[in-house]
Amino acid sequence: MTPFSPAVYADRRRRAAAQAAAAGLAGVLVTPGPDLRYFLGYTPSADTERLTLLAIPAADGDHDGDGDQAVAVVPRLEAHDLEVGAVGGIEAVAWSDGEDEHAVAARLLRPDGRYAISDAAWALHVLGLQRAMPASSYAAVTTVLPMLRAAKSPEEVARLAAAGAGADAVFEQIVTRRFAGRAESEVSADLDALLRSHGHEQVDFTLVCAGENGADPHHEAGNRVIREGDMVVMDFGGLADGYGSDTTRTVHVGAPTAGEQEVHDVVRAAQQAGVDAVRPGATCQDVDRASRAVIADAGFGDWFVHRTGHGIGLTTHEPPYMVEGEETPIEAGMCFSVEPGIYLPGEFGVRIEDIVVAFPSGVPGTADAPDSGVRLNTSPHEMVVVE
Amino acid sequence: MTPFSPAVYADRRRRAAAQAAAAGLAGVLVTPGPDLRYFLGYTPSADTERLTLLAIPAADGDHDGDGDQAVAVVPRLEAHDLEVGAVGGIEAVAWSDGEDEHAVAARLLRPDGRYAISDAAWALHVLGLQRAMPASSYAAVTTVLPMLRAAKSPEEVARLAAAGAGADAVFEQIVTRRFAGRAESEVSADLDALLRSHGHEQVDFTLVCAGENGADPHHEAGNRVIREGDMVVMDFGGLADGYGSDTTRTVHVGAPTAGEQEVHDVVRAAQQAGVDAVRPGATCQDVDRASRAVIADAGFGDWFVHRTGHGIGLTTHEPPYMVEGEETPIEAGMCFSVEPGIYLPGEFGVRIEDIVVAFPSGVPGTADAPDSGVRLNTSPHEMVVVE
Repeated sequence: MTPFSPAVYADRRRRAAAQAAAAGLAGVLVTPGPDLRYFLGYTPSADTERLTLLAIPAADGDHDGDGDQAVAVVPRLEAHDLEVGAVGGIEAVAWSDGEDEHAVAARLLRPDGRYAISDAAWALHVLGLQRAMPASSYAAVTTVLPMLRAAKSPEEVARLAAAGAGADAVFEQIVTRRFAGRAESEVSADLDALLRSHGHEQVDFTLVCAGENGADPHHEAGNRVIREGDMVVMDFGGLADGYGSDTTRTVHVGAPTAGEQEVHDVVRAAQQAGVDAVRPGATCQDVDRASRAVIADAGFGDWFVHRTGHGIGLTTHEPPYMVEGEETPIEAGMCFSVEPGIYLPGEFGVRIEDIVVAFPSGVPGTADAPDSGVRLNTSPHEMVVVE
Repeated sequence: MTPFSPAVYADRRRRAAAQAAAAGLAGVLVTPGPDLRYFLGYTPSADTERLTLLAIPAADGDHDGDGDQAVAVVPRLEAHDLEVGAVGGIEAVAWSDGEDEHAVAARLLRPDGRYAISDAAWALHVLGLQRAMPASSYAAVTTVLPMLRAAKSPEEVARLAAAGAGADAVFEQIVTRRFAGRAESEVSADLDALLRSHGHEQVDFTLVCAGENGADPHHEAGNRVIREGDMVVMDFGGLADGYGSDTTRTVHVGAPTAGEQEVHDVVRAAQQAGVDAVRPGATCQDVDRASRAVIADAGFGDWFVHRTGHGIGLTTHEPPYMVEGEETPIEAGMCFSVEPGIYLPGEFGVRIEDIVVAFPSGVPGTADAPDSGVRLNTSPHEMVVVE
């Protein structure tokens, strides 16, 4: 992905240091993956058992706001890669094969500190740090600092909007193609190629679920041949210039029955209610409740079997989650999916999904709408009939 | 990959249960990745924050050897995938979005048990289990049960041998092609295509390091144009039918100088010494010491900057490690690389790497050699001159 300026990464590290201090933590420990890309713009060439760790100490009251005290621990063999890859550079301590890398990291940390650590940090390393520093303690980043990457800057929203526009262009093209008589997997391959042709360097999923397969929310795409009369759920996305797209539309091959149309109408209304729930003072669970209420009121409550949405950014699937029990307030710049569905076993399924940015302001390509959610997808919501 | 029979997976789980009991553990907790492929033949379609966990309780003295008491915890949306994907089937407990998945897992575990957990299990989950069961404790699989996947069965060695034969065929072909005047990245792309044409469904690395770039053991391949007189290190491998290949040869464009030949001769002798060190009673560090002694005796000790080898199996990089301090005895069926090197900054590097199986017996395609290590690669060890 195109890196942002060094100041962007240094600023992210300073904000993390301040958030860690506010949460009473000694710091944030970042391991390879989206967290490290976020704070350093760097990804090792392979995610191996060798420890790479960026330690961001909590802001010290004396230097609040001015310090970027982050230090990286890196395998000696990858020290040069880090030096070249870390945007703007970073202080680094290299360790060699045979050394105890957790002891090396411990020398940079507070022995009795409580640290947030990347969700996907290897158990090998979190347990190694616990062993090296028995008085220290750890919590997964999303359990103690769920906001760490959730609120996107205007530059990030612009990338997400561009990825969403790419996905919309894919939908516009796919519905002009033939569905009846082709296998789900063929349409899925078309979606993959179209995503790549619309700026995606990585395709994460291209689900095509025809007829009864649509009733399984995680069906991918198989040999099932699409027929006249099928509902077809298509859920696709990936990364374009480092940021995610994820959209779902449910189309129909030929004219739908009244019953099919009714289910689609309910899901469409539920999706709109979810987007409308993005209001100042709302929490993540409010979005889930709003979509769920529409579906329950229509009598389909038992057939909406998943949460309403998930965050998106450097990955296509991250906090915050739009789910009952998630009382995190929605903040400006949060980007997440709103994707209710109804799944009727043995019959069909319907899901409609857009990416929504909360309270955007000053983001190129989005309305200035500080009191609402704004969709980053513009594909039509009515049920499109395909051939 | 082609699955093995259900009995193979059930037997692996029984052996893990016995090993856990012998190590005083309450069981083994397995998360998605190579461990889950090993014990269940299953991989979720995406590695997300949702918990999938296979719990293998330690063997109970009363039922030693006859019990396969393993139970899986799975996200409800993926329960069907697991049912279809787990070879021979497995008892499973599904959890739904919004539930505390760690509490669900805890109900299947001993609240005060000490468990081995997959090295790459997410910190989110190991910390979640610690929270759900404050009296429980955890250790990374490789720190307490390093042998869990290290000793390969004859069927596995046969797959590794086939992958190695594919890599040897790649080397045989690449040295007939032109090197001088082409960029490292072009030769690298050739290696990628050749690996795929020789049965590899996944390519993990195709390093091509010309001249001074050879002095960086982890240089990948770049725009550097290869010239007459260059040493060129090529290190390539991936997965063929689920099992890994990994081999390195250093070739020379045109005739080498006496100094270059000397360095190559030292590395070749060091590699042979490492293979020869695979004897009954030897430990992993003995292999490292044997290779290192040859290089040190020749005066190049400061320029051999990494360990001598690593295990290979369902991944191209796993325990056991051939490194100082690793006192694990070498067991029959262990497969690992022996890959010493000399790296002269600003000048060139030489590395020679083969995969070696310890004490093979009854493995098709390998000699019956219960007292030695047998190479799974047969590419020539003398320095090949290319054009």
